[in-house]
Amino acid sequence: MTENLRVAVIGAGRMGADHIQRLHTRIHGADVAAVVDIDLDRAKAAVAHISGAQAFATATEAYESGDVNAVLIATPGFLHEQALLAALKLDLPILCEKPLTPDAASAWKVVEAEVATGRKRIQVGFMRRFDDGYRQLGRLVRSGELGDLLMLHCRHRNPDTPAGFTNEMLITDSVVHEFDAIRYLTSEEITSVQVRLGKATSKAPNGQHDPQHVLIETSSGVLADVEIFVNAQFGYQVATEAAFEDGIVDIGGDGGPYVRRAGRWGGEVTPGFEERFGAAYDAEIQSWVDAALRGEIGGPSAWDGYATAACCEAGVEAQKSGDKVAVVLNEKPALYGGDSQ
Amino acid sequence: MTENLRVAVIGAGRMGADHIQRLHTRIHGADVAAVVDIDLDRAKAAVAHISGAQAFATATEAYESGDVNAVLIATPGFLHEQALLAALKLDLPILCEKPLTPDAASAWKVVEAEVATGRKRIQVGFMRRFDDGYRQLGRLVRSGELGDLLMLHCRHRNPDTPAGFTNEMLITDSVVHEFDAIRYLTSEEITSVQVRLGKATSKAPNGQHDPQHVLIETSSGVLADVEIFVNAQFGYQVATEAAFEDGIVDIGGDGGPYVRRAGRWGGEVTPGFEERFGAAYDAEIQSWVDAALRGEIGGPSAWDGYATAACCEAGVEAQKSGDKVAVVLNEKPALYGGDSQ
Amino acid sequence: MTENLRVAVIGAGRMGADHIQRLHTRIHGADVAAVVDIDLDRAKAAVAHISGAQAFATATEAYESGDVNAVLIATPGFLHEQALLAALKLDLPILCEKPLTPDAASAWKVVEAEVATGRKRIQVGFMRRFDDGYRQLGRLVRSGELGDLLMLHCRHRNPDTPAGFTNEMLITDSVVHEFDAIRYLTSEEITSVQVRLGKATSKAPNGQHDPQHVLIETSSGVLADVEIFVNAQFGYQVATEAAFEDGIVDIGGDGGPYVRRAGRWGGEVTPGFEERFGAAYDAEIQSWVDAALRGEIGGPSAWDGYATAACCEAGVEAQKSGDKVAVVLNEKPALYGGDSQ
Amino acid sequence: MTENLRVAVIGAGRMGADHIQRLHTRIHGADVAAVVDIDLDRAKAAVAHISGAQAFATATEAYESGDVNAVLIATPGFLHEQALLAALKLDLPILCEKPLTPDAASAWKVVEAEVATGRKRIQVGFMRRFDDGYRQLGRLVRSGELGDLLMLHCRHRNPDTPAGFTNEMLITDSVVHEFDAIRYLTSEEITSVQVRLGKATSKAPNGQHDPQHVLIETSSGVLADVEIFVNAQFGYQVATEAAFEDGIVDIGGDGGPYVRRAGRWGGEVTPGFEERFGAAYDAEIQSWVDAALRGEIGGPSAWDGYATAACCEAGVEAQKSGDKVAVVLNEKPALYGGDSQ
Repeated sequence: MTENLRVAVIGAGRMGADHIQRLHTRIHGADVAAVVDIDLDRAKAAVAHISGAQAFATATEAYESGDVNAVLIATPGFLHEQALLAALKLDLPILCEKPLTPDAASAWKVVEAEVATGRKRIQVGFMRRFDDGYRQLGRLVRSGELGDLLMLHCRHRNPDTPAGFTNEMLITDSVVHEFDAIRYLTSEEITSVQVRLGKATSKAPNGQHDPQHVLIETSSGVLADVEIFVNAQFGYQVATEAAFEDGIVDIGGDGGPYVRRAGRWGGEVTPGFEERFGAAYDAEIQSWVDAALRGEIGGPSAWDGYATAACCEAGVEAQKSGDKVAVVLNEKPALYGGDSQ
Repeated sequence: MTENLRVAVIGAGRMGADHIQRLHTRIHGADVAAVVDIDLDRAKAAVAHISGAQAFATATEAYESGDVNAVLIATPGFLHEQALLAALKLDLPILCEKPLTPDAASAWKVVEAEVATGRKRIQVGFMRRFDDGYRQLGRLVRSGELGDLLMLHCRHRNPDTPAGFTNEMLITDSVVHEFDAIRYLTSEEITSVQVRLGKATSKAPNGQHDPQHVLIETSSGVLADVEIFVNAQFGYQVATEAAFEDGIVDIGGDGGPYVRRAGRWGGEVTPGFEERFGAAYDAEIQSWVDAALRGEIGGPSAWDGYATAACCEAGVEAQKSGDKVAVVLNEKPALYGGDSQ
Repeated sequence: MTENLRVAVIGAGRMGADHIQRLHTRIHGADVAAVVDIDLDRAKAAVAHISGAQAFATATEAYESGDVNAVLIATPGFLHEQALLAALKLDLPILCEKPLTPDAASAWKVVEAEVATGRKRIQVGFMRRFDDGYRQLGRLVRSGELGDLLMLHCRHRNPDTPAGFTNEMLITDSVVHEFDAIRYLTSEEITSVQVRLGKATSKAPNGQHDPQHVLIETSSGVLADVEIFVNAQFGYQVATEAAFEDGIVDIGGDGGPYVRRAGRWGGEVTPGFEERFGAAYDAEIQSWVDAALRGEIGGPSAWDGYATAACCEAGVEAQKSGDKVAVVLNEKPALYGGDSQ
Repeated sequence: MTENLRVAVIGAGRMGADHIQRLHTRIHGADVAAVVDIDLDRAKAAVAHISGAQAFATATEAYESGDVNAVLIATPGFLHEQALLAALKLDLPILCEKPLTPDAASAWKVVEAEVATGRKRIQVGFMRRFDDGYRQLGRLVRSGELGDLLMLHCRHRNPDTPAGFTNEMLITDSVVHEFDAIRYLTSEEITSVQVRLGKATSKAPNGQHDPQHVLIETSSGVLADVEIFVNAQFGYQVATEAAFEDGIVDIGGDGGPYVRRAGRWGGEVTPGFEERFGAAYDAEIQSWVDAALRGEIGGPSAWDGYATAACCEAGVEAQKSGDKVAVVLNEKPALYGGDSQ
């Protein structure tokens, strides 16, 4: 019998707790071996009902326990660089929640460290690539059956934002998913970003200009635009419309029971990303586990993390200047030859 | 220049008033010449803003005015027989709101009187034949492109019922439209009717068993069923699903602006038949006017009125007995050779 | 009895022929009195089956016939200025197909001529204001029930373009409708236009860069964008998504029978603007006739024609320069105080 | 660490192979320990890539291997009785694909054998109870927020049938799912079944009368009807519309990317039950595994298997007679007190 992956989950906050539950109850071939959190009590609470899992305050202790052979990083982004470099040294398979790191320079350091190991060890948590809608749209693009893809119109709407969500995070925390999705759908790099600021909602916290309209170009000239609206009140929605030479495709439509009551037809809007992308997270983690057991990665690479970090930097600058800002990337290392496709 | 049709509208109640407004503001080639109502004040109110139109308490007076050359009958059904026979004698083009008459025997008398005149003068107000959805479904059936039609599942739902709406009227006032629509869609006569009574809503007035499930067969064996639910609270809906050998077709879906708000997606349910079938009424009346100016009828004939009256009789008997009740028709007069198609 | 409007239709091409048919068979209160076309044979063909209508080679002859008391202008746009000034001199009620004139300077001359007459005589043919979807969205904006309107995402897609359709006409013939619709929905003027040119379809004729992404701002900062794609192959589509503070509204969704066959669900795409906006044209012409009989106009004014001409000029310049181009308007004459609302 | 369930899968045909793959790659907490098939080569092929799993020609050998502590029965239904009784004797947790057994008498023997063990060991494979749509509809019924449930309109359509699919199997193999779903949704037993045979498709194999219209009543008088159409050509569809006192709910609508191309809007019809109910099968098996590890069952019980067997018997009789046939059940053993809810 194959040994299951023994995973250390670093970070027991919202995303971490979600992944711990996922690994413990739904993912085949992996078990939670350790939970690491600076807040040791939170780590202990997370493993309370998982026999065979231990709680630690540091990743080093978890690794030294001898029971860990894989790591899932779910801490805030500014802590990723250090955690990634440490795990790369131990040659562990790594699933790193997005972003890889918060900026292009630190992301590039991670890329260089991974390249030095000679193989891809880091998979980045862009889970949209595992969502049925994006997968089917990606297949349509690559099949060529509707001709070339020409434009993408994206909507990314949240009901509201947690405390501490800044104006820059509209780009770095939300639009970052569209940056990767556009790269995934087109198999191209993004070459420029521009941000339009117009009329703002009265429902946003101080400091946020919400919504924003983000204009994106890819290397072959595909035009994309994103309405990012993070205090949209009505609910959660992530949707994309793609204009091809021979047809128009929409993904991300509403679903669920269709109810007619009290003069209204319709259903319930998805309340949040967990409901919208829960199955995609399951598929993502399972893909990582399956690949890790073979010594590979099963999704977006460190290069994808680096390239989107560069987009985010350009996006934040564009937010401030109102200008179109070019996205410039280092040369792609040979290790990542076949990525984003 | 062609003379416009000078129409006497008999009955200035809800449907009559609606048709008066339609003839006066939207229908090309016809004008309201007279409004007839036993309640003369109601007739006078109806013509108050229509220059050239007169109010009368009886149809005879309207005809004697010399200004009328067509008649639209919008009184309650039990008054139709007399009004139809009088108008036939004057050889006027007649648009008669459904039902032709309330029962098969009186409807047959009208048919015989019309046959005696040698041409079709009566058009019956089954306006669904002028609704885009039914028309397109009818074309699909006749084209044969989806193979034979095998089953029809119909829904007829009202938010509530006006005072005086009886249990029999679920059949004679509501399902009567499905009787005609099924005949129109299949180009066949109905051969039997059965009614299932199950759990009833607590929202219906005393005496009504609501909803009911009506089972219908046509001469070639097409099975149809109708959910008639006249106190359905949520709004108005008339929809049909058709199962063909090679495909399934739905008409009557919800429309209008698609709104996402407060955790719900959807739109507004049609509030009533005026909104759902307003355009069909316009098309129906225009078709009658155009045909009348040529000396013809432009829609369902007196035969259709008679055949559906026979279905209603069978339906009411089926409601009481719970049995499958056969629908038996007299031989079809040659005059109506090409009807229902 | 009120006299019907006796309309001279100038121009018997595609749009003119459509309006002649409409006036002759569906519009209450108006008749076709004259058809004017430089190609007299075309004019004669248009009146062949209309008793009481005459054909002329010039508008002057039609007016001198003494049988005309209203005019509908359906010639190419470059002929509008002369026709409008002539009809204004005769104080006729005028329905002028869009555009009012092809550029802002000539449109302003028409505005000045109308202002000199002291009342509004010109209604411009922006028929979207009579489409159910735009009307309902406009009502939602004005009601405030979803909070302020923040963004509009518009799609305008044609299957292909007629011979002679130039790159500039993407703006002046197609986006011009969105210019007016955005003004109508926001009750504001447009302040700037920018055009993004990205990857182009291989299906467009030489000289057209298709599709284009048009970025628009209104005076209060509402951001709008339009995908204009006039060789989109799949069919015709005009749709808008509106982001409000408290909800998202879509209009222009697909309709008609819902068919499941051969592994596919769905229905038929609207083939062209006649099918999509036929009912809106009917409503527009009826509104003009009803208003003209009262000595008023019943829709968009010459001011709306002028303001959209200025948007078109800016749009064409933006197409060439790639820059954001400001839209500058003359001061609004008091005569048009309540327009666009 | 908890031990995983070591499952013997009996039957390596279509459903068996599907469940083997599911247990091996997606289900957490269970492994395939043995595959049993009379055709030993088929069993061997099924375990070829599963380290730690063995192939056997009989269940007895699998049990004697000492490596099995649970059993999933996926053989044809006529073999279930024997397999169930053997597994009950060994006190194993059992997941039995539907039907429990082919008729009510044999199903009752299984119930009695299970009751004799003193606890529920058998879970029956009615996977619709694990489908999101049915779950959400069930919740709506039980919440009472739309008032009482009054009627259910069900559609069960397959593109075609495998060789050997008989006329009786329309009831026993297909409608059996609706029998259970109706019991699940209403929390009531079915009291009668009737079958209408009308016009039949020309696409069905000899011996099948297809489609059929099945009329069902529950103990409180809820009326249900099922269109069962197993050679419907267009694709696969399982959908239900529920009429409540205060609203109408549809589940099972079409989904996936929404494409406009070549004059059509829409998407792809689900091709078969694997695509439609794949996630439900996963959820069902996971629920059984989780419950089995606690010594319980996590879904429909042997009572549900017995009650639906009685419905199938009545349905087949109704198919032949055309009459309404009562469904009569033995008294429910106390062991199953809380089932179907």
